Amino acid sequence: MPLHGQSYIAGASVKSGTEVFSAVDPQTGHTLEPVFHESSEKDVETALQAAEDSSSVFRRSSSKVRADFLEAIASEILALGDALLERAHRETGLPLDRLTGERGRTVGQLRLFAEVVREGSWCEVRIDTALPERTPLPRPDLRSVLVPLGPVVIFGASNFPLAFSVAGGDTASALAVGCPVVVKGHPAHPGTGELVAGAINRAAQAVGLPAGVFSFLQGGAHALGKALVQHPRTRAVGFTGSHRGGRALLDAANARLEPIPVFAEMSSLNPVFILPGALKERGAQIAQGLKNSLTMGVGQFCTKPGLAFVVAGEGGDVFRAELAKAIQSAPCGTMLHAGIGGAFATGLEHVLALPGVRTLARAEQSQELTSSQGRPVVLEASAETFASQPALREELFGPAGLLIEAKDRGDLQQLAEKLEGQLTATVHATEADLAGAQDLLAILERKAGRVLLNGFPTGVEVCHAMQHGGPYPASSDSRFTSVGTAALRRWVRPVCYQNFPANALPSELQNENPLGLMRLVNGQYSRDCI
Amino acid sequence: MPLHGQSYIAGASVKSGTEVFSAVDPQTGHTLEPVFHESSEKDVETALQAAEDSSSVFRRSSSKVRADFLEAIASEILALGDALLERAHRETGLPLDRLTGERGRTVGQLRLFAEVVREGSWCEVRIDTALPERTPLPRPDLRSVLVPLGPVVIFGASNFPLAFSVAGGDTASALAVGCPVVVKGHPAHPGTGELVAGAINRAAQAVGLPAGVFSFLQGGAHALGKALVQHPRTRAVGFTGSHRGGRALLDAANARLEPIPVFAEMSSLNPVFILPGALKERGAQIAQGLKNSLTMGVGQFCTKPGLAFVVAGEGGDVFRAELAKAIQSAPCGTMLHAGIGGAFATGLEHVLALPGVRTLARAEQSQELTSSQGRPVVLEASAETFASQPALREELFGPAGLLIEAKDRGDLQQLAEKLEGQLTATVHATEADLAGAQDLLAILERKAGRVLLNGFPTGVEVCHAMQHGGPYPASSDSRFTSVGTAALRRWVRPVCYQNFPANALPSELQNENPLGLMRLVNGQYSRDCI
Repeated sequence: MPLHGQSYIAGASVKSGTEVFSAVDPQTGHTLEPVFHESSEKDVETALQAAEDSSSVFRRSSSKVRADFLEAIASEILALGDALLERAHRETGLPLDRLTGERGRTVGQLRLFAEVVREGSWCEVRIDTALPERTPLPRPDLRSVLVPLGPVVIFGASNFPLAFSVAGGDTASALAVGCPVVVKGHPAHPGTGELVAGAINRAAQAVGLPAGVFSFLQGGAHALGKALVQHPRTRAVGFTGSHRGGRALLDAANARLEPIPVFAEMSSLNPVFILPGALKERGAQIAQGLKNSLTMGVGQFCTKPGLAFVVAGEGGDVFRAELAKAIQSAPCGTMLHAGIGGAFATGLEHVLALPGVRTLARAEQSQELTSSQGRPVVLEASAETFASQPALREELFGPAGLLIEAKDRGDLQQLAEKLEGQLTATVHATEADLAGAQDLLAILERKAGRVLLNGFPTGVEVCHAMQHGGPYPASSDSRFTSVGTAALRRWVRPVCYQNFPANALPSELQNENPLGLMRLVNGQYSRDCI
Repeated sequence: MPLHGQSYIAGASVKSGTEVFSAVDPQTGHTLEPVFHESSEKDVETALQAAEDSSSVFRRSSSKVRADFLEAIASEILALGDALLERAHRETGLPLDRLTGERGRTVGQLRLFAEVVREGSWCEVRIDTALPERTPLPRPDLRSVLVPLGPVVIFGASNFPLAFSVAGGDTASALAVGCPVVVKGHPAHPGTGELVAGAINRAAQAVGLPAGVFSFLQGGAHALGKALVQHPRTRAVGFTGSHRGGRALLDAANARLEPIPVFAEMSSLNPVFILPGALKERGAQIAQGLKNSLTMGVGQFCTKPGLAFVVAGEGGDVFRAELAKAIQSAPCGTMLHAGIGGAFATGLEHVLALPGVRTLARAEQSQELTSSQGRPVVLEASAETFASQPALREELFGPAGLLIEAKDRGDLQQLAEKLEGQLTATVHATEADLAGAQDLLAILERKAGRVLLNGFPTGVEVCHAMQHGGPYPASSDSRFTSVGTAALRRWVRPVCYQNFPANALPSELQNENPLGLMRLVNGQYSRDCI
């Protein structure tokens, strides 16, 4: 199936703009075929109108249809076979085995969300039955349920061409609840995007949903993104990317006549705290794990541990030596595109120019690196330098880490207090360390969305309990997650029905509980009829 | 207990500012004793620092302590006795029986929230247990629970001096989850605020919580409100009031380096749609109910039905005549303060000057009205006028309603489509009407947070299923409610604990489920141990 280089609007391939762009293979620097057509403002209008027009059918679709839709998307993605993986590999430089795993994650995520939709209790039914005899005033019958917000705009991320892109977690969670989706694909992998968008279109057709429930716009212009966020039909936005990009979308959404929610997952240092007992007992093992986590995917994960704190003392030298050795022998890797490679190099240069920042170790390089290649590095600085240099508390996207030595536990807590919001925070500790770490853990609980013990933050599990989103600037609204089944909660709001007769109520709210949902009835959880 | 006219910061009465102001009895226009001291920026700093300092103790307090706290606040409010009601009556002009009812609502709300906190399942525990044997990768143990955001700033509302003010739903829900609260009292009822703030202080002391969990600042300056929203310690904001005021706070919060959530409940027309069968069958009765609802509390409820649509046809004349008669004999009432009385008069003048707007009926007045008095009125206009005049779609706070005649059901739907977001939308319909009203109901479900059949929107029940909050501009974030037990959800965010040993986990997350919570364990709802 050759690529056509066009956008998909409500199932139809469209090229209305005059601008074109191409994908580039970051491994070779060569331009890839075909040429892609940048979407125009007219496309934004058409896509969002089609989304709106499909809205009422989609919101009333049964859970069965929506679950079937998600499963059909999963099947259609698998049916694309190796062609999808190969295109993604050429556009992103990510190895085929990683992309195979990422496809598994994407498909698994769609199927898990389908399961949640089929079960149905996610819509949080609350029922308070009428109390006609109550004095001084009777209580009416009140029943609330979550309903979809309406058309959602999703921005594809560069670092997960499948799992956080066209059919990634944002799209899957929005479609799961019945929100039409307009995706702006990431311009670094337009061919991958086109293939996946085609899969979603076929799935919508297969289950008989209106084509307008999904559109896919090609393009890289900032103006395109802004137009999508500002369009009056857009009811919410999902984004994964840089702090600057996320904040720009957030500001655009907040400046609207009617502000809309933006769920932006932006930047995180994912600090790791290595406590004295753990350092002494298994410093070398932690060093190895840290190196693996920070160089995994050439350091291009949002949960990359970019910062590690150790307390000066026994085991510190072994840890540093082991970390240095591990980094020296780590391979250089191809980054997602030359822009990211360039930003990594510039960012690193900037940090290294700060007084008090030293290089602990860099990966050995056997040959000249291209502009897309990332060379693993660990820097170090004193606690004072870290405290006085705000630039050290900014994310450096790529295979770089910063090691800070604290004088003691008190110092460690003060450093933790200086951190901004994080997606994750990790503590390595023995049982004895833990006994004295309650204050540190309490600080980290305030700073992060996920707190880990004796592990590494990369590898974000798609499950019910996952929280991927932390206080700003980790994400724009820490009350929500972009990974896991709770991600559905972002695209819905409650509606309360007062004194509706049974036949006018949505089936979720009927006395008979025909869908067998877990509901909160007069304050009690129950799957029973009323 | 004489009033001291000062703010309360962490339990201590404070007057640091140089500016003073007084309450005015809207019934007489006379200034009330004592003079109140406007809070300074220094007070903002002290109050938020005290809130932050109390944060870690408060967030770790047991549900029992927090429930006891809420119940103690309720008891302390009741212990204020008639002095509270009398002061509130003098400051707001609201009748004593209404204030007695509002006190009951306030106390009942505190007790209901205490019950929810004691039961404990509101914190939405999600647990996915480890799968160490899973291939290709094991699954870690992941457990999430809602934790408090931190210090919350609440703005007291003028129209509910008890239920939406110092110890109202916003404060009660934030304290329930363990967020310290700084209230800026409404300057129209500072004495009422001082009394209630004293009650909260005594309650905190009685249950042994740090005094910093609650502060109360007096003042009316916009700069004070802005300073509270901009303060770096503030983690969230609650507000009930005008669209202009809410939007200003929202913009200030969004312009912060770290934006924070603002829950602002702002403005709503609460449209009522009277369908042909209902109009014919019981037009007179609906007219009477509409008059009662729109003049209740001198039209100063956020759910006042400010707009009614009828379809031209049988029963229309009877309905109009009955509504006119009811309005003519409705009493004029004292509004909350001269500012609101003035805004009502000016707003009404502005609307009446629009071409095509006529007066259907005004309350008869036996004597000259003071500037604080509101005179009930119903205006009417054609569907075309309504469609072409955006000013008719703005809230007019006070006892005024607008009646629009639609040609037919299609016309009615088009009018509904033109509405902005609403707190409520109401339909009066017979069973036969309803059969043909699915499209209209679907539109209203998109426009409003609560949809009512054959009732009136005033009288917002405090219960589990209530949704008080709708699409913008009804509220700033339709995903949340400011009334009912789901209001707790505004002040929390999930934190996920990965691979924590049992003794380091919060008790909510322990295998033994010592609190007996309903939890989502591996995707299944259960109160069992693991």
